[in-house]
Amino acid sequence: MQLAMVGMGRMGGNMARRLALGGHRVVAFDVDFETTKAIAAEHHEIHPVADLAALVAAMPAPRAIWIMVPHQVVDATIAALLDAGLESGDLIIDGGNSNYREGQHRACKLAESDIHFADCGTSGGIWGLKNGYSLMIGGKSEAIELIAPALTTLAANDGKGWAHVGPVGSGHFVKMVHNGIEYGMMQAFAEGFELMQAKSEFALDMHQIARVWQKGSVVSSWLLDLTADALEQDKGLSSLSDYMDDSGEGRWTVNESVDLGVPTPVLTLALQMRFRSRQQDAYSGKIVNAMRAGFGGHAIKPAGKA
Amino acid sequence: MQLAMVGMGRMGGNMARRLALGGHRVVAFDVDFETTKAIAAEHHEIHPVADLAALVAAMPAPRAIWIMVPHQVVDATIAALLDAGLESGDLIIDGGNSNYREGQHRACKLAESDIHFADCGTSGGIWGLKNGYSLMIGGKSEAIELIAPALTTLAANDGKGWAHVGPVGSGHFVKMVHNGIEYGMMQAFAEGFELMQAKSEFALDMHQIARVWQKGSVVSSWLLDLTADALEQDKGLSSLSDYMDDSGEGRWTVNESVDLGVPTPVLTLALQMRFRSRQQDAYSGKIVNAMRAGFGGHAIKPAGKA
Amino acid sequence: MQLAMVGMGRMGGNMARRLALGGHRVVAFDVDFETTKAIAAEHHEIHPVADLAALVAAMPAPRAIWIMVPHQVVDATIAALLDAGLESGDLIIDGGNSNYREGQHRACKLAESDIHFADCGTSGGIWGLKNGYSLMIGGKSEAIELIAPALTTLAANDGKGWAHVGPVGSGHFVKMVHNGIEYGMMQAFAEGFELMQAKSEFALDMHQIARVWQKGSVVSSWLLDLTADALEQDKGLSSLSDYMDDSGEGRWTVNESVDLGVPTPVLTLALQMRFRSRQQDAYSGKIVNAMRAGFGGHAIKPAGKA
Amino acid sequence: MQLAMVGMGRMGGNMARRLALGGHRVVAFDVDFETTKAIAAEHHEIHPVADLAALVAAMPAPRAIWIMVPHQVVDATIAALLDAGLESGDLIIDGGNSNYREGQHRACKLAESDIHFADCGTSGGIWGLKNGYSLMIGGKSEAIELIAPALTTLAANDGKGWAHVGPVGSGHFVKMVHNGIEYGMMQAFAEGFELMQAKSEFALDMHQIARVWQKGSVVSSWLLDLTADALEQDKGLSSLSDYMDDSGEGRWTVNESVDLGVPTPVLTLALQMRFRSRQQDAYSGKIVNAMRAGFGGHAIKPAGKA
Repeated sequence: MQLAMVGMGRMGGNMARRLALGGHRVVAFDVDFETTKAIAAEHHEIHPVADLAALVAAMPAPRAIWIMVPHQVVDATIAALLDAGLESGDLIIDGGNSNYREGQHRACKLAESDIHFADCGTSGGIWGLKNGYSLMIGGKSEAIELIAPALTTLAANDGKGWAHVGPVGSGHFVKMVHNGIEYGMMQAFAEGFELMQAKSEFALDMHQIARVWQKGSVVSSWLLDLTADALEQDKGLSSLSDYMDDSGEGRWTVNESVDLGVPTPVLTLALQMRFRSRQQDAYSGKIVNAMRAGFGGHAIKPAGKA
Repeated sequence: MQLAMVGMGRMGGNMARRLALGGHRVVAFDVDFETTKAIAAEHHEIHPVADLAALVAAMPAPRAIWIMVPHQVVDATIAALLDAGLESGDLIIDGGNSNYREGQHRACKLAESDIHFADCGTSGGIWGLKNGYSLMIGGKSEAIELIAPALTTLAANDGKGWAHVGPVGSGHFVKMVHNGIEYGMMQAFAEGFELMQAKSEFALDMHQIARVWQKGSVVSSWLLDLTADALEQDKGLSSLSDYMDDSGEGRWTVNESVDLGVPTPVLTLALQMRFRSRQQDAYSGKIVNAMRAGFGGHAIKPAGKA
Repeated sequence: MQLAMVGMGRMGGNMARRLALGGHRVVAFDVDFETTKAIAAEHHEIHPVADLAALVAAMPAPRAIWIMVPHQVVDATIAALLDAGLESGDLIIDGGNSNYREGQHRACKLAESDIHFADCGTSGGIWGLKNGYSLMIGGKSEAIELIAPALTTLAANDGKGWAHVGPVGSGHFVKMVHNGIEYGMMQAFAEGFELMQAKSEFALDMHQIARVWQKGSVVSSWLLDLTADALEQDKGLSSLSDYMDDSGEGRWTVNESVDLGVPTPVLTLALQMRFRSRQQDAYSGKIVNAMRAGFGGHAIKPAGKA
Repeated sequence: MQLAMVGMGRMGGNMARRLALGGHRVVAFDVDFETTKAIAAEHHEIHPVADLAALVAAMPAPRAIWIMVPHQVVDATIAALLDAGLESGDLIIDGGNSNYREGQHRACKLAESDIHFADCGTSGGIWGLKNGYSLMIGGKSEAIELIAPALTTLAANDGKGWAHVGPVGSGHFVKMVHNGIEYGMMQAFAEGFELMQAKSEFALDMHQIARVWQKGSVVSSWLLDLTADALEQDKGLSSLSDYMDDSGEGRWTVNESVDLGVPTPVLTLALQMRFRSRQQDAYSGKIVNAMRAGFGGHAIKPAGKA
């Protein structure tokens, strides 16, 4: 089939490549036309366009336009597509990491112009090009049927790695929870490895342990595979800082658990330990120390002493 | 090589089978001789014995004796083996889920009789027979070399799935942390699925989602595979209670984190949510409600009203 | 001074009484006129009105109108007040438990009509009538000066228990955090008492312990005083359920910590344990049990067995 | 009555003073005789002794000897007292922060010499001299009756602030839980103040807020009083570090919750956030970042960049 891909970053570029390898025609756009041209040069099925008007012109209706851009610019991208001439019956798929509520809102607004919207959670990272992606998509059946061939090409597991999980919003909702779980799993491994590292009397070899757990153990997982590979390259992980960033989905997961009244201690603490990793000279610690000094005359480490 | 296996339960029986399939001679013992005979009937390499004296008599020194019994009876089993005539130079491997400190203590005491001791953490559950086990063993090199052929046969990953991780104690220590991580991962998945289940407006299909995450997603793991299979058989998991038991390693992990001063919020909360699942009419809730009634005149649900 | 009080519930009624006792004239309104009349009958300084038009008519401009209604009906109340004839220069104080962002929004909209708005967090519960309230108010200085005499009368600590903490929104923000802390403190006590209750070998007397901690100990606090009193009346707290409700501020606190990227594990877990207390047959527990059955053949308690 | 006090540190010295002020004769000992003499110079009821033999000689049997020493030297102190000539019928009270299980063990061993033992949890810190202590004591009734007059003098709340809570061990058990709760409360306040501090748009004054909460609010407590005082002296708490130490009872509380299978998320997280405050370049963070780099090509802050 034919599909437009808007955004030629790490994810969008690889998805264009995988679609082209699967025999689909991909009309490709990025704000940086040089990037687009470089990727298009790899596959004759990828057709670079310099602007969104050209993108719209290059495709017969009804068009399927997959946008893979930072969530902060999704709305601007949609507005620009409308300006560029999208027509009734066209379909926009947001494949990035948007908040699901925003997707619901976008679908509502686009429906006024009779334009379809689907939200697709996309997991797989930089490995998706080779292994395929895990795709969870929300929207109306008629819209999703339109792009089923592309989804099958993109998907892992011999094309079975995608699912129409529900109405608009559900794709990003499921992906949000996926990422929440991912945070929890990562923190579980991190705590376990830290505990083993701290047990100095055993002088444990983290790489050896990660390798021996990879097959046959209950914790075998892709995240463990990645850990084992990283430990092979840098046993002490000395090149990495302990400052843990986050990209939003973990926060939305916690907010959702608050809304639904569902306890999610593990997902929440995984997020909060990321927050904690970014603090220096935490005010909370000073407050505790102020109290300890107040009631107990506990000797408190003065500020600035390492 | 030749090895004795003490304990023909779910784990010990399967390990005896796998060793026999690998060409090793296994002297097998269980407190229930009928069980031993039934397993021995499957493989001519498995030699059933009715008591530990017969086990000792059936093997030339130095003997390697793998014990796979509930951790409560490990000491009694070792004492019985000593009574049965173990000799200087023999080796006992505790392959169960003992606390690593007990292993250190046992090694000390056995060293007085010049008997070797190794502690082996064994992961893989009921699937180990077919897929091999993940084995992490602690002890002296000369002791572990003795049984390397057996470890290679038992191990997953074409025989590479075992490692000599350090001195006595380290095998069970690493296995303990493994199980701590396992608790965290399970709770992470559990919270995520609960959140999706609670989002009734999307009417999500848990089985479909588990399947689509299995390949290509960041959370792909054996635990997810098992979840997907369980959801296939019983979509609502209606046959299962929400009462979560624990078997000790998670508790030891938390105690260890307290000893080492390492924060493990995710591993700890995973354990504590199991504790919580067992409570009925929790006193803590009553205390909170007593306070709320005290300061606010908040209407509190009286006891006994569902 | 003169003030209107809208809402004669547990909080509003008592505040009207305390203001009247302090010599202020209170124009009182409630959707239930019978309630208003009953309270007004107690003090000649309380003037009951049957509707908001009468309330507006009964006061000279500029009017100070304190609304003490459930947060769900604050907007409707404000709209009704505007309809009833509020004028430029009047002041509305929302003294209930609204979300601070809503207060900011309300102030913006009221400013279009040149009506002032202040948001006042009010702590003290049913004891405020006697002991005075702890009041944290946000808004412009000129607005708050208008009602300073009333705030001084309402306040605990000989009239010093109120503070102008910042711009509009800050009053409810500070109250929100106050309640978040309150959740944490309550849960801390609850866990401690539960632990002592569970230590059956000591047969501890919870009431005795609460009493002995009340004076001189580090945990002495009003919440402990309330606990001691409750335990005196009902040693086993057998009349209370363990189902813990929440009224919103704890949820907003967690959402705020997520927004600000500040770790609040204790405040969050205190909330989530309330959520957990409301679950029956938690799906998360079933998921964990499905995995445990899958990998280990662990005997899992079937559903429905107590 | 007459009592010996062993240990003239911050706690023991003040307790000797309070007993002397209450009219009791106190035989005082410390490893540093100069300290003992200085304190004894304040009150003629305090009789300094230079060694434990002199202490024993200075008192008629049956002797009541209160030891107030670091928990690491309690056993050595008891051994030295036995050497110094303690007799059948004498009573040792451990008033420090020992683990309750050690107290049970000590009582057992002392019973062989027919010497009584009581364990007394003592709260109040440096303020106990003036305000009295909160005392929770475990032991046999006949032993505790012996020292009831001293307990009444030491206790806060006009002498009512002590209680015989149960058998030997229960005194320190209850104090341990008290401290666990204290950790939870402190962390609750710390998180709340940190959240307010982080809300820069409101430019909140932490001291003002602490003061306004002191009276009439639900969080009013001694810990809040101490916080308000500390904030008055140093608004930014700039003289304090955020490195939070711990002195053991919080750890024992968590271990106890693990043993009893009681969920204590708030008490546990309060402790673990202290652990976290001591970490620099946490290995757990590096592990998470290794995974993030592995699957996502997420740009990770390199080590050493602030």
